[in-house]
Formats: sequence, C-alpha cells, structure tokens
Amino acid sequence: MTSIDANPPSGTRDYLPAEVVRRERAFSTIRDTFHRHGFEPLDTPAFERLDVLTGKYGEEGDQLIFKILRRGDHEASGDADLALRYDLTVPLARVAARYGSQLPTPFKRYHIAPVWRADRPGKGRFREFFQCDLDTVGSDSLVADAATIQAVADVLDRLGLTGFRIQLNARPALAGLIEAYGVPAELEGSALVALDKLDKVGADGVARELVERGVPHAAVDALVGDLGSADLAGAVRERLASTERGRDGLAQVDRVLELVGEVPGGTLAYAPVLARGLTYYTGPVFEVVHDGLDATIAAGGRYDGLVGMFQANDVPATGGSLGMERILLLLEQAEAASDTRSGPDVLVTVMDEEGAADAMKLATQLRDAGFTTDLYTGGGSRKLGKQLKYGDRRGAHTAIIRGADERAAGTVAVKDLASGDQTTLDQSELVAHLGALLGR
Amino acid sequence: MTSIDANPPSGTRDYLPAEVVRRERAFSTIRDTFHRHGFEPLDTPAFERLDVLTGKYGEEGDQLIFKILRRGDHEASGDADLALRYDLTVPLARVAARYGSQLPTPFKRYHIAPVWRADRPGKGRFREFFQCDLDTVGSDSLVADAATIQAVADVLDRLGLTGFRIQLNARPALAGLIEAYGVPAELEGSALVALDKLDKVGADGVARELVERGVPHAAVDALVGDLGSADLAGAVRERLASTERGRDGLAQVDRVLELVGEVPGGTLAYAPVLARGLTYYTGPVFEVVHDGLDATIAAGGRYDGLVGMFQANDVPATGGSLGMERILLLLEQAEAASDTRSGPDVLVTVMDEEGAADAMKLATQLRDAGFTTDLYTGGGSRKLGKQLKYGDRRGAHTAIIRGADERAAGTVAVKDLASGDQTTLDQSELVAHLGALLGR
Repeated sequence: MTSIDANPPSGTRDYLPAEVVRRERAFSTIRDTFHRHGFEPLDTPAFERLDVLTGKYGEEGDQLIFKILRRGDHEASGDADLALRYDLTVPLARVAARYGSQLPTPFKRYHIAPVWRADRPGKGRFREFFQCDLDTVGSDSLVADAATIQAVADVLDRLGLTGFRIQLNARPALAGLIEAYGVPAELEGSALVALDKLDKVGADGVARELVERGVPHAAVDALVGDLGSADLAGAVRERLASTERGRDGLAQVDRVLELVGEVPGGTLAYAPVLARGLTYYTGPVFEVVHDGLDATIAAGGRYDGLVGMFQANDVPATGGSLGMERILLLLEQAEAASDTRSGPDVLVTVMDEEGAADAMKLATQLRDAGFTTDLYTGGGSRKLGKQLKYGDRRGAHTAIIRGADERAAGTVAVKDLASGDQTTLDQSELVAHLGALLGR
Repeated sequence: MTSIDANPPSGTRDYLPAEVVRRERAFSTIRDTFHRHGFEPLDTPAFERLDVLTGKYGEEGDQLIFKILRRGDHEASGDADLALRYDLTVPLARVAARYGSQLPTPFKRYHIAPVWRADRPGKGRFREFFQCDLDTVGSDSLVADAATIQAVADVLDRLGLTGFRIQLNARPALAGLIEAYGVPAELEGSALVALDKLDKVGADGVARELVERGVPHAAVDALVGDLGSADLAGAVRERLASTERGRDGLAQVDRVLELVGEVPGGTLAYAPVLARGLTYYTGPVFEVVHDGLDATIAAGGRYDGLVGMFQANDVPATGGSLGMERILLLLEQAEAASDTRSGPDVLVTVMDEEGAADAMKLATQLRDAGFTTDLYTGGGSRKLGKQLKYGDRRGAHTAIIRGADERAAGTVAVKDLASGDQTTLDQSELVAHLGALLGR
C-alpha cells in the first residue's frame, strides 16, 4: 500500500459511469447531427510541438499552456518541447496547412475533444474540459455562415434545449454603428466593449461607461437614446442606413437571417450591440443564450485571418463552438428532474456455484433477445439481498432469480426492482414477460 | 505567416475524417457490446499527479512517462508535478481507492481512452494510442473471469473479426506444470518464458533455450516429448493430474471453459504453455489471436495484487484489454477491400446566389426526411463541375441540382454520383426518388 492522495489532479474530474453515459449520449447526438448536416469529424493529438502553440493565445494565454518536459538525457535541462492542446482552432490551422490538398474545399469539420488550460480552478472552471467546434474552412460565402448557425441550432434542438435565442450581428455592422453614431474611429474597440454590456448594466450603465472611455457626449446621447428604445434593432437599423459602411454591415446580417430562415426550437434575431471577439471575428458573429441558464451556450462567427497562420495565404473560415460544460450542466439538471432507472434491463443473479454456468447461458439468451443484461459476478456468500442491492445500485430494472428449485422445475423468478413485485413463470415465457415488463 | 513544421509531433497522428469515422464506428460497437454485458464506462483525466504514476511501471516504464512542467513561478525550476496517463489500470486503482463506497461491488467498468508513452516511434508503435480495458474489481469468483472472456469474444464477433482463437491458461496451472515436469522451482519464471515461445521457435527451439537456461535434461526431455505431441493439451493435462498444484490449476481452466461455454465467431481452448504477465497475473489468463494477423488482438487475466495499490487491502480484480490499434488495422483492411462510398447521402448544390436560400431549405427538408445532407457552402464561381468534384471527394452518393430554370418549373435534377446518371423530376417526387436510389 502506498499512502497517496487518490483525488484527481486539481481542476480535473473523474467521470463515474452515470456521468460518462450522460456525456456520451450528448456527444453522440452532436456527432449525429453534424453528420446529418454534412460536417466531417477530425481528431488531432492531445499535444502539439510547443512552437505550434506559443504566441497564438496572447501573453496571458501562453502562461496557461501545459508544457511537457523533454525526455531521457534532455529531462535534466528542464526544457519543454511539447505542450497540451489549448484549443481546437490552432490544430485545425495546422491540419489545413499540412493536408490542404487532400481535403475537400470547403472543408467542413467538427472536433469534439478535451483541451487543457492551467487556469486557477474554480466553480465551473476546469483545467481539462471538452470543446466542441464546428468550422468551415476555405469559403468566403455567407452560405457557410448560415449553415453553421443552422447546424448549431439543430444540435441544441435535438439535445432538447429548446427555448434558446440566437443573437446575430456582423463585425462590419459594428464598424458602421460606430461611424453612424459619430464615435471617433480610434475609440471603436473601447466603445464596443462598453456597448456589449447593455444586457448587464442597462442603458444608463453603458452611458456612464462610454463617457468614462472618452466618447463625446453627442455620440453618447444618440446611442443611449436608441439603447433605451423599445425597438432597439429598428432604431439602430435606421442609423446604419445612413452610412455606406452601416448598410454593408446590415446587408450581411440580413442575408444570414434570410438564408437560415426558421429556427425550430429557438429564435434568431439581429442583436445590434453584440460585440464578441473584436480582434478575432471579421464577418457575421453570433451568440446563443438559454433562458434556463444566465449564460452563453454557443457562439461563433467568421474569422478570415486565423486559419492561414501556418500558410502563405489567408484562408477564409467561419465556425461555431458549443459551450459543452454548460450544456452538459443543463442536461444534467433536466435529467435529475426526471429520476429514472438508467441501468441494465436485467440483472441475472447467481444463486449457487452449480447454477453459475446456467446463469451465464441465460444472460447470453437475454442479450441475444435484445436486453442489456448484467450478470452478478461477485464471489463470496452470494446472498440474494446482496445481489439485489447490487442491482439497485446499478439502476437495473429487473432481476432474474433461478436457484436449484427453479432449475429443477424449469421455472424462473422475475423481480421488478422498482415495484418489488416478484413473479415465477415457466422459462419459456421469460422473454415475453420481460418485454411486457420493460415496455418493449 | 509563420514558417513551421505542420506535421503532428513525432509518434502521434492526425486522424482525417474517414479515419475518425472508422474508429468511432468501432468504438461505438465496443461501447454498445460492453453495455449489453452490464459493464459501465469510466473516464479519468488525461494527466495524473506524477507521484500517482511513478514506480508503477518498473524503471523502464518510468522513463517513458511524459511529464508536465510546473507552471508560473515554478516553471523555471524545471520540475514536473503532473504526467500523462501511461495506462488505464493505475487510474482505475486510484478511482477504486477514491470512490470505493460509491461504486457497486463488484465494479464492472470499461474505459476507452488514449494513453501516452515516450517510446521510440516506429512502424505500428505510437506515442499516443488508444487502450480499451474491461475490468471487474472486487470479485474473486471465476464467474467474473468467464464474463470478461464472454464480453471480449462478443465484441470481436460484433466487429466482424470472426475466426479469432481464445487461448486460455491459469497462472496456478503453470506453477503446477513446472512442478509436474520436475523443473526446479527457482527456474520457474525463466522456464515459462522459454515455453511461451513454442509457437515461434518450435519444440526443438524451446528445448535448446530450456537447456541454456539451466533446466535439467530429464525435465527438458519430458517437456519436449509432450510439446511435440499431436495432443499437447491432453499430454500436459495427464501430467498435471499427477500433482495437487497441477490439479488445482487445471480446475481453474476447466471451470472457466465450462462457464464461458460456446463462443460464437471464434474458439476457446486450453493453451498449456501460454505464459503472459507472469509477475502480474494470479489466476486465469487469456490471449486472443486472429489468423488474419500474426498477432495478439486481445488479452487479459486475473491480477489480484494490483488494484489495491492505493488502499490498505488487496482488491481482487480480473479483466481484459483489446489491442485497439491492431484491431483498427484489421478493420481498415477489411473496409479497403470493399470500397464503398461513405459520405453523405446527398449533396445539395448551390447554383447561384439567388438560389442559396432555396437550397438551404431543400437541405433541411431532406435532413428531416432522414437523409444525411451536405450543402455546398463554397463561394466564388459556383461552377457545377467544382461542386460535383467536391461531392465526389466527400464520397456523397447523389447531388441535387436546382438552378433558375428548375426553380421556375418546380423541378429538381438528381445526379447519381456513382453511375453519373442524371434525372429531372418534379420536386414533389424528390424524397421518394432518393429513397429508391439509396435503397431505403
């Protein structure tokens, strides 16, 4: 025995079976939906060469990269040559540079995988967490942007997260807004950060912040007048129509709205002050919020400057990302509310050593008949109570009991573990009885 | 642009879409089969605290652990505090120690995940590769050993790898064999290593090696006489019957053979000189070979001394492991031989900007009708030839073409991308026509 801390490392989690099942179910729905939309899966190694990652995430990001020590004789140097994946975009850029000619154009890929960041662990903040990205590389068409939003919306609908709201904007429309309201161009980024807080701090809060950031009073007054309007989108649209930049930006938004069309399970609307990833996104941007959780559950946009980072030319790209950890939390809450047995259909008990081979055969027959079938494989006393407790803990629906008496008589006892009811029947009736009990 | 090596790190692989699809299909079959057998999934972080891993894999193994540099102010120390998972057994032992009372007893878990070893990369040897382990923790019953073999065999059958041979032995039977043939006890390990090479070097080769290892001539003669026998298992059984140790070992083998019973898709037989993991396994051991590949594709056994490594008491455990990389290679060979289109059912082309919204609606209708549907989202010229080439590269089965003329006439053209045949039909007939074409 070694006396050792048996917890997982700080900021990471062990996933016990019920949790893995829930996560895998969600991943499976996501994979299936993306597949239906014509996206293809990609996977890359957990680590990259260190030089592939450094300098891609800003100074702050670089600090959060998990670096891997060199090995063998080089270990003593204390140097790193590899590093754990920090996101799924840099690996995509590397793959696009490496396999470009082997990939279809456009390349529509999804990638569901863990990433690692040496962030300070906290509530809902982990050092190992899953990302789920959907991107189209090599197309400058707004059809690609619209197809991304459609696929993301379809995933949320299929996951049962109906009631989501997709907020849409476009980077050029934001530039047009700055111009149309007379905010000095050099304050664009600063003013947009303030405007993006409208939902959190209200029109007055935004006004205060704009003034603090040095935006002229005339511009602040014009903006705040419209921010307080009952029809914010309509008011901003009117302003944008007054400048060419504004009209161009609005045209992007309207084209995406037209192409996406109806959104089953949710809504899609123009959000004039939505401003995310200002240095990153170049075209349409979107954010999906869910009323059940005061947070963004998906987001994305066009980022034409990034995927070409390992190539000689820029590569247009657009995509979206699901906030997996938040989505899984929502699904967990929904499941906890329903409280159903989620284990095997049947637990075949083993009453004595003589009956073990018979029990194994019975389990095989039940599996062949389509029932998920656990077999009690514990040793020791084989007390029935212990086995039924095991079945309960596994969340099994029914237990099959077949001791020496039943074997001699050609019968079998079936216990419904939810109700506790027990019936003895002829062995030949077992499959039909279980089918009825389990609602098949 | 950064000029950088765009290959994945040495010893790792990028998985392009066709490869991910093939791998995911196999993983899905494995998960489904283990689930049917009442095993539950477990997942643990990619890295563990360094002290959890060191000292568990021998000196050679310790050298192959990827260590993670400390972060922030501690980075300059060159010290590591975390390390990438080296196998799935040590994490299982940690989980058993940490969550023991929350888990059912016995705990039947499977774990499919990558592990990392800083081995010298070579043909078929990788630094990142998947392991797929199935273990039962907390049972000393041979029913658990038999249930493991049954589940492993069922997976291989369901993967289509029929013709596999499961070779079964038991550690105590090997000890009995050494005693029965008069090999000195202190040469047990050495002699068993030589005996295990029978398939590779033949009876004469084994004899030479036994002599070199210092086994007395009388014992070598007795062994080699039986090793050359047409009925090796029968000959060894006879010898084992002569000692108590031998009889006990044989009883384990026979009990497992009886409990497992028939093995659909393969065979199960006693393999008297199979000797794997001599310092590791304590009870039944098995190895699965496939005639299509001169290698082991699965293996396992009982290892009662290991899972308790982080606890005060020993914990009985038995399990098996699928050789995923070899199995995936076999499946790839089988698939390459069949050469079928594996892409989406339908590619909806976009002939002009005016038709884009119409094309997106059509794609949604086809998805709702159950077809996996890709939409061409590329920009630029939208030449039909380019779009059909894209469809071919995606492995799409059919392409839908709907230009201004078709839209005006309410028709749609369907091109079979395998045969090249193209038909124009009324829009209302599209779903039925595709169903017939795709054999739904």
